[in-house]
Amino acid sequence: MTDPNDLRAHLERLDAEGRLVRVTRPINKDTELHPLVRWQFRSDLPENQRKGFLFENVIDSSGKRYQHPVAVGVLASNPAIYAVGMQCELSEVPARWKQALSNPIEAVLVDSGPVHEVVLTGDALDAAGEGLDAIPIPISTPGFDNAPYSTCSHWITKDIDTGIRNVGNYRGQIKGSRKVGCYNQGGQHFTLHLDKCRKKGVPMDAALVIGPPPAVSYAAVQKVPYGVDELAVAGGLLGEPIPLVRCKTVDIEVPAYAELVIEGRVNPDWLEPEGPFGESHGHMHPRELSPFLEVTAITHRKDMIYLSFISQVTPSESSVIKKLGYEPMLLGFIRDSVGLSSVVAVNMHEPMTNLRKVIVIKMKNPSQPEVWRALSAVTTFHQGVGKLVIAVDADIDITDMDAVLWAISYRCKPHEDMQILHGREKGHAPPFHYMGGTTEERVQYHEEATDSCLLVNATLKTPFPPVSLPKQPYMERALEIWKELGLPEVRPKYPWYGYSLGQWDTELEEEAELAVQGKHHLTGDKLAQRKVKV
Amino acid sequence: MTDPNDLRAHLERLDAEGRLVRVTRPINKDTELHPLVRWQFRSDLPENQRKGFLFENVIDSSGKRYQHPVAVGVLASNPAIYAVGMQCELSEVPARWKQALSNPIEAVLVDSGPVHEVVLTGDALDAAGEGLDAIPIPISTPGFDNAPYSTCSHWITKDIDTGIRNVGNYRGQIKGSRKVGCYNQGGQHFTLHLDKCRKKGVPMDAALVIGPPPAVSYAAVQKVPYGVDELAVAGGLLGEPIPLVRCKTVDIEVPAYAELVIEGRVNPDWLEPEGPFGESHGHMHPRELSPFLEVTAITHRKDMIYLSFISQVTPSESSVIKKLGYEPMLLGFIRDSVGLSSVVAVNMHEPMTNLRKVIVIKMKNPSQPEVWRALSAVTTFHQGVGKLVIAVDADIDITDMDAVLWAISYRCKPHEDMQILHGREKGHAPPFHYMGGTTEERVQYHEEATDSCLLVNATLKTPFPPVSLPKQPYMERALEIWKELGLPEVRPKYPWYGYSLGQWDTELEEEAELAVQGKHHLTGDKLAQRKVKV
Repeated sequence: MTDPNDLRAHLERLDAEGRLVRVTRPINKDTELHPLVRWQFRSDLPENQRKGFLFENVIDSSGKRYQHPVAVGVLASNPAIYAVGMQCELSEVPARWKQALSNPIEAVLVDSGPVHEVVLTGDALDAAGEGLDAIPIPISTPGFDNAPYSTCSHWITKDIDTGIRNVGNYRGQIKGSRKVGCYNQGGQHFTLHLDKCRKKGVPMDAALVIGPPPAVSYAAVQKVPYGVDELAVAGGLLGEPIPLVRCKTVDIEVPAYAELVIEGRVNPDWLEPEGPFGESHGHMHPRELSPFLEVTAITHRKDMIYLSFISQVTPSESSVIKKLGYEPMLLGFIRDSVGLSSVVAVNMHEPMTNLRKVIVIKMKNPSQPEVWRALSAVTTFHQGVGKLVIAVDADIDITDMDAVLWAISYRCKPHEDMQILHGREKGHAPPFHYMGGTTEERVQYHEEATDSCLLVNATLKTPFPPVSLPKQPYMERALEIWKELGLPEVRPKYPWYGYSLGQWDTELEEEAELAVQGKHHLTGDKLAQRKVKV
Repeated sequence: MTDPNDLRAHLERLDAEGRLVRVTRPINKDTELHPLVRWQFRSDLPENQRKGFLFENVIDSSGKRYQHPVAVGVLASNPAIYAVGMQCELSEVPARWKQALSNPIEAVLVDSGPVHEVVLTGDALDAAGEGLDAIPIPISTPGFDNAPYSTCSHWITKDIDTGIRNVGNYRGQIKGSRKVGCYNQGGQHFTLHLDKCRKKGVPMDAALVIGPPPAVSYAAVQKVPYGVDELAVAGGLLGEPIPLVRCKTVDIEVPAYAELVIEGRVNPDWLEPEGPFGESHGHMHPRELSPFLEVTAITHRKDMIYLSFISQVTPSESSVIKKLGYEPMLLGFIRDSVGLSSVVAVNMHEPMTNLRKVIVIKMKNPSQPEVWRALSAVTTFHQGVGKLVIAVDADIDITDMDAVLWAISYRCKPHEDMQILHGREKGHAPPFHYMGGTTEERVQYHEEATDSCLLVNATLKTPFPPVSLPKQPYMERALEIWKELGLPEVRPKYPWYGYSLGQWDTELEEEAELAVQGKHHLTGDKLAQRKVKV
């Protein structure tokens, strides 16, 4: 039983496009699996060559062979793979997001679905090697992680007052055959739901969904406003409702075509140490006191595919998946909510810096106050967003930090064009209180306003001479010759031709034209008339 | 007549290593030649694939075919080509420089040399299409440059008081069949020599040398102290003296094995507009009043090869050639002259920013005052060096700006760890006084202390958790599997494995070891004993 929008239909599409690597040799899920896929991100492999991986023969250190395959990198190893999952062209992704957020489509409840082909409850969960232990959950950061953690795992909970559901992507630490630790930061919707249950003295029902239709995952990892149902956003992305089934043991609905659901309850009165786990800020996130799920049922497809994704140091699958939705949202916020239409593009810088810290905005003919307002707007978008925020002109390729550094180097004076904004929180970042030692010391870290942000106005304030590269027609002609000579295939890097930045005139234009005609003596003779005595 | 150290011997070595592209089809020197080689620098072509080019069939827009070939990119399209020119391994280059500067070898005068195989003087210089017009000097930036300019042209002049020679690399604007405009900034040694001649009321002899032994070019483009003879430094680089011959019409000695020498005199009393010409700051450098050479003789080899290089927007041949000598000098200055041995490496950032503006220093276990002293030291090295100067720890790959931005994002707070240094000059950079209009307005730009520099201390001030990547043995094992699977060849990008940054302990180490053995339940059970009531 498949669905055109489900994960396995997606894997078939990836395979057909040559974007899936099937690995049939034995792979140790705890020591080999993630490191292998990680090489796509920690090497000079071009982004467009990254693939999704399907491991069909998964073992562990004890030699145990798992019944189920593991997919990694299949949702968003690169933007092209993400577009396959969105079932649209890459260029259509921002419009898809805009459409989905303004026109979400409510999910629909159906009677049954393949996620219930296998239902395990009670003692079946506790048998040795069964239950959670039968699921091939890989270790993401072998050598540092203290357990297998689910990574692409969407926690569905409900607001006990309104019944409105939240779908949030949080990791899950496998602590026992029936226990999953849940990392969550203050302010996340999961935590808000749990707080409400604590006040009422009731446990919180939860379902951990793995491998739903990719659109659900794309929605789950985005920060959407509280009260907006991510499953309806996923429906909006697809243009049709997501079919749901009721869970077997808790009052939660889950996608009928998911691969796996872990049902359970969270006791709001107790916390346990959870972590450390490798995080997207590029460091091990230390142990903190966190809630945990006591598992009441596991349901999955008969031929379930376990889905994990590559997170931690960026770029990663996790950063690609976030970037593609996050950037249109930031741009929409600045243009539509703040009303600054001179901002024409944003780059939430990805490699190593995890999207949130270094943000570059491209502005078209802005006034200087607009530049500063835009820079400030970026810092207000979300908690922890903005450590280094840079505004550049429309001629700068904001995805190329060398070009951004060029703008900073030549178009700004630090004492006039940089400002430090105080009173910021550090956000999702070290340093952390040292978490070693006793339980009592492992307290939740509270954010304080002890950090700051550097705003950089690297736009042009005065006309500059043209960029010192040949004019476009000469470069285009030269590229034809380059190809005719059989030299290696190249892709242009912007700027690849010269253009005016305001300081040029018709006399210089005419002299340049004379020069390419071989008539530079005329210019020499003319300039000789302008000689001056020292 | 060749010499093992001359340009043609170098071209043979390049050819033997597959680093030379010979182009036999007709190429227009004014519109096609530089744009073609430019694609090596304005595309995604990897640096190690850049080549030297030898154009054997050079024409111009009138259809004229030149007798002589043109070489471009053969001195330093990439560091490997530079190492061929230095006749050593790339890793030996810094030591070569150190040796040459501390043990220069004086050039020796010889009776004759191949540079005098053809000698043109008097009327021979003025015949139509002869003299300067017979030399295939290409246009570097067609569409903007107002003439062909020599680029890799070393001006040799003498201090009229001491007789000590200077060899400086400046462009030369071809203004007529007997006139070459000379761009030079205040403070350069050429200008100092000319000032002395003006005071004595005598013209300055000069020789413009093109295509000497590559070691001479490598020395000529470096900033060496006033009074140090670049030809002796070149001898130090080679380990043997450079043979010189006396010029035919001026009191200057030039390399006997150069390809071409333009002899002449500069009248110190007169200036003419010179420029605009594309410069390494990435913009057209505007017209300024400058001295000019009146040609008295042209001498060259019978089968002369004209040598040009790719300058303007960086990276370029000009930036590669400077970087390889400039960085060891800056590092030596900080370590030896300032005495900060905690600085272990420097990166003068090259793409777009022209080495001088963005400088990253790598420090090993520095004290915090040492960090600030090192940052300040960088800004004192040379005029115009340092707009953004960043100190990072030894674990950061300073050649990877993503890693540097990672350090800035997580290891510093702008209000505590950044300082703006006022009173700086803008250096070799726009904006310029607008140079259009009358001659009188085209005055030399004088530097004012109106710019500033941002110093960034991005070193770790407190222990951090480990980098969230698998430990090295797991990544190494995974790379073996990667290769066994026949996946594309990749080169690791640092960091490619996790390592401690001080915040980790033996308990966490043990838990991670249990996890890869599949014994994470033991950890789960242990942590359950540490549960706390909310």
